[in-house]
Amino acid sequence: MAPVGARVLQNDYGTAPGLVIEQGEKTAILLPGPPIELEPMWRDRVEPYLFERSDSVIVSKNIYILGMGESAVEDRLRYMMEELTNPTVAPYAGNGECRVRVSARAKDEKTASEMCDSQIEQIRNTEVGQFIYGIDVDSIENALVLSLRERGLTVATAESCTGGLIAKRITDIAGCSDVFLGGCVTYAVDAKVKLIGVSRETIEKYGVVSAETACEMAKGVRLALGADIGIATTGIAGPGGGTPEQPVGTVYIAVSTKDGEKFKLLNLSPKRSREFIRICAATNAMSLALNS
Amino acid sequence: MAPVGARVLQNDYGTAPGLVIEQGEKTAILLPGPPIELEPMWRDRVEPYLFERSDSVIVSKNIYILGMGESAVEDRLRYMMEELTNPTVAPYAGNGECRVRVSARAKDEKTASEMCDSQIEQIRNTEVGQFIYGIDVDSIENALVLSLRERGLTVATAESCTGGLIAKRITDIAGCSDVFLGGCVTYAVDAKVKLIGVSRETIEKYGVVSAETACEMAKGVRLALGADIGIATTGIAGPGGGTPEQPVGTVYIAVSTKDGEKFKLLNLSPKRSREFIRICAATNAMSLALNS
Repeated sequence: MAPVGARVLQNDYGTAPGLVIEQGEKTAILLPGPPIELEPMWRDRVEPYLFERSDSVIVSKNIYILGMGESAVEDRLRYMMEELTNPTVAPYAGNGECRVRVSARAKDEKTASEMCDSQIEQIRNTEVGQFIYGIDVDSIENALVLSLRERGLTVATAESCTGGLIAKRITDIAGCSDVFLGGCVTYAVDAKVKLIGVSRETIEKYGVVSAETACEMAKGVRLALGADIGIATTGIAGPGGGTPEQPVGTVYIAVSTKDGEKFKLLNLSPKRSREFIRICAATNAMSLALNS
Repeated sequence: MAPVGARVLQNDYGTAPGLVIEQGEKTAILLPGPPIELEPMWRDRVEPYLFERSDSVIVSKNIYILGMGESAVEDRLRYMMEELTNPTVAPYAGNGECRVRVSARAKDEKTASEMCDSQIEQIRNTEVGQFIYGIDVDSIENALVLSLRERGLTVATAESCTGGLIAKRITDIAGCSDVFLGGCVTYAVDAKVKLIGVSRETIEKYGVVSAETACEMAKGVRLALGADIGIATTGIAGPGGGTPEQPVGTVYIAVSTKDGEKFKLLNLSPKRSREFIRICAATNAMSLALNS
């Protein structure tokens, strides 16, 4: 039972409710732990509650960065991070990507938003600028879907080492079906040949993990599905399968369009986990597609 | 700099170290936050440190359950959960699955392990027993890979609403290539027809989200890749795309073997997130394959 004076926050799931306890100037909000209960309750109940009671507004915007390590980003932006108080600049890292959050507090949303924009402009003018792939895009997959939609293009995926992760991440985005046609997870050599027409000669001559195979995969899936862009990955996610010439973390990513194929070799650290290597390979492959 | 008397725990990543501070009977261990730094340090440094200093051993075993809700599991096992102190029985839920952890403390590992086994046997004899798909299998994808390997079978996937999630989860498991040949993410209707030979008539007559389409997808990908088992999903993950007849959460899963096809209709709650519906559909599809 709720304590006297507590307000019960119900959710729509019939699961544990939250509680708001107000006492003088202090307010305690108790929420259930499982994210699936916590998140809608935060969004639908707690945020509006807090908004109602606040006399200023905080606006945050997130800058998405790929290709520059967190510590390098921090080095370049250290003076902003340490000296600014409004707006504030804070870096977050994860899985080979980096995000910088800019937050401003002001009387109204428009003013706070403009303060963020002006700070973001300053960050764009640093060395970090060239590695920014989007503002508030949420993720590289979302940036890719938005960009393809804007350009009226479709995409298909052919994945070996990422094993479906790129397709999974693109289809995490509701409504992606206008740009994502489908893909193949060509884990076995035979799958590469049968599903997307990679030639056995290419695989025998250059190896499964090679620029040539990656490019044929990207082109093969693009043609098989009639897409504008094909994305492919082939590499060694580990922990087994590495060789002195091709250690774990060796990944070729490729993109095919009607203008031809391009590829990139990633040499990720063999000390990294299978999960990290796969996420990083998927992210970089989508980034290559974003810029094509 | 480390405080006087503190021991520094280095890791192999060149990132932030941990600290062990011992003072009389008390020990504090400070660790970095990011999982990628924390986890190897815990495994390689902290666990051995703790093991060295302990005079008893705790063994935990996890029971994996699918098809019975957490609250139903709790109801059936409540007396164990509330009354036992060694071993202990504790339920964990997440994404439509349930896990029950049994932990025992004893002088040596063998004794603790036997105490767990005997408790697990008692749980098997309750109503929960029939929903257990494995002990310490870690996940349904791992249980599936282990089972297929043991039976010398291969699998291929055809995914619509799960968009590559099943392939991704299977390939999360290092060394899965002996059982997983590959898969197709057939998001667009054309992809279903072109890649795995689903007939346009079937789709037009029964709809994309139907038992018939799911079965043809499972069979189609099995034949296309020459696998022993084909797994397929087609459904409405939301938040858009639902109709009064087929609300969000309607998912058909199907499995094809040389003996024919079988399918199952999942009616997941339309209030659940796209992520939850996709995870749940993938889990259930793998479970259907595990039992075929």
